[in-house]
Amino acid sequence: MIRIGVLASGGGTNLQAILDGCAAGRIDGEVALVLSNVAGAGALGRAAAAGAPHLCVPSRGTTDRAAYDRALAERLAAARVDLVCLAGYMRIVGPGFLRAFGPTATTRGCPRVLNVHPALLPAFPGLHAPRQALAAGAKISGCTVHFVDEGTDTGPIVAQAAVPVEDGDTEESLAARILAEEHRIYPRAIDWFARGRLSLDGRRVRVAPPAPASPALRSPPAGTD
Amino acid sequence: MIRIGVLASGGGTNLQAILDGCAAGRIDGEVALVLSNVAGAGALGRAAAAGAPHLCVPSRGTTDRAAYDRALAERLAAARVDLVCLAGYMRIVGPGFLRAFGPTATTRGCPRVLNVHPALLPAFPGLHAPRQALAAGAKISGCTVHFVDEGTDTGPIVAQAAVPVEDGDTEESLAARILAEEHRIYPRAIDWFARGRLSLDGRRVRVAPPAPASPALRSPPAGTD
Repeated sequence: MIRIGVLASGGGTNLQAILDGCAAGRIDGEVALVLSNVAGAGALGRAAAAGAPHLCVPSRGTTDRAAYDRALAERLAAARVDLVCLAGYMRIVGPGFLRAFGPTATTRGCPRVLNVHPALLPAFPGLHAPRQALAAGAKISGCTVHFVDEGTDTGPIVAQAAVPVEDGDTEESLAARILAEEHRIYPRAIDWFARGRLSLDGRRVRVAPPAPASPALRSPPAGTD
Repeated sequence: MIRIGVLASGGGTNLQAILDGCAAGRIDGEVALVLSNVAGAGALGRAAAAGAPHLCVPSRGTTDRAAYDRALAERLAAARVDLVCLAGYMRIVGPGFLRAFGPTATTRGCPRVLNVHPALLPAFPGLHAPRQALAAGAKISGCTVHFVDEGTDTGPIVAQAAVPVEDGDTEESLAARILAEEHRIYPRAIDWFARGRLSLDGRRVRVAPPAPASPALRSPPAGTD
């Protein structure tokens, strides 16, 4: 079971999906620490309600990004976090942070910071992705779980889901349809990481089949008794 | 019923889907002329087999692109073509050609050249889109029917379909999965154009609901007889 750190700036609905996934056993892990850069963020309330350790490290007024990132990384390391999940975290995480959560001997080349983005990357990176999709006249958009690298939404892709763009969509209605898929694929991708099923091959993330159930739990072959 | 011109350079499977769609009444149109820039292209054989007018205008050795495009546009105009469909046409169509098939009073702002591209635009424009999708590690790709403008695969999007990228995919297996969706959505988008259901609103293509069936074909309301 892995220990998960979550960084969130907003209402925390993806955090909630992760908390729920852990509670229900759909994620082989537990939320060891929720950090927010925004005092009063809904994510902190959700962490409290779920009994998950949480802390606000206000970013307002900070100018030294590297020092801020270092403070976060130290908190996460103290909580012995194996994987950091960005969930509506509205700051860029810098190279020092990414080095602190780079690949380890057991992660098959995978770094240890995940994000979810409301578009089918590489389409519509950056801010306001649903608005970008509408402006481009896309008929299909979706969401992407990806490892975080130093670019903006450029890291290796772990999972994607597509949603239709409807003629009558507003930015809000499209974002809501995409968000529902984020809540579905993000916990699943985190569970893949937790169970050691992910490996990085160049830019491609491979997902290994699930490990077979333990022999003790399997039915005996027919005709053996 | 509209008259459709098809430009094709290759084997012509999308042409075949259009021919089949017209024959089956799924497209309210007929293929009035198939032009290929490649002598012996499979598309010409398919046109012949379907009894559709067809002609090779070899591009090999031509250096004046505008003059070549003009020759094509004249052939298409002589065949009284309402809509030009690119179907595996491996040349860029230039601004003069696009002006010749610009919007008319009856097309609600829509230009009259369509293309199908093997990716979910704006992702992976240009050549070898399935190869690009694999190299980027995308988990979902697809295809796009779009109006053609002067950019490379940048015109307004009419229809899209998504397909999964599988871990074991090669460029060929992914391209084949995408192609099957092209054969499904391209005839449908052409039919929308043929029935006047498309309109262009900025960069967004709107698809109006189908016209109601003629009253004579409808069942009378319950209790009226």
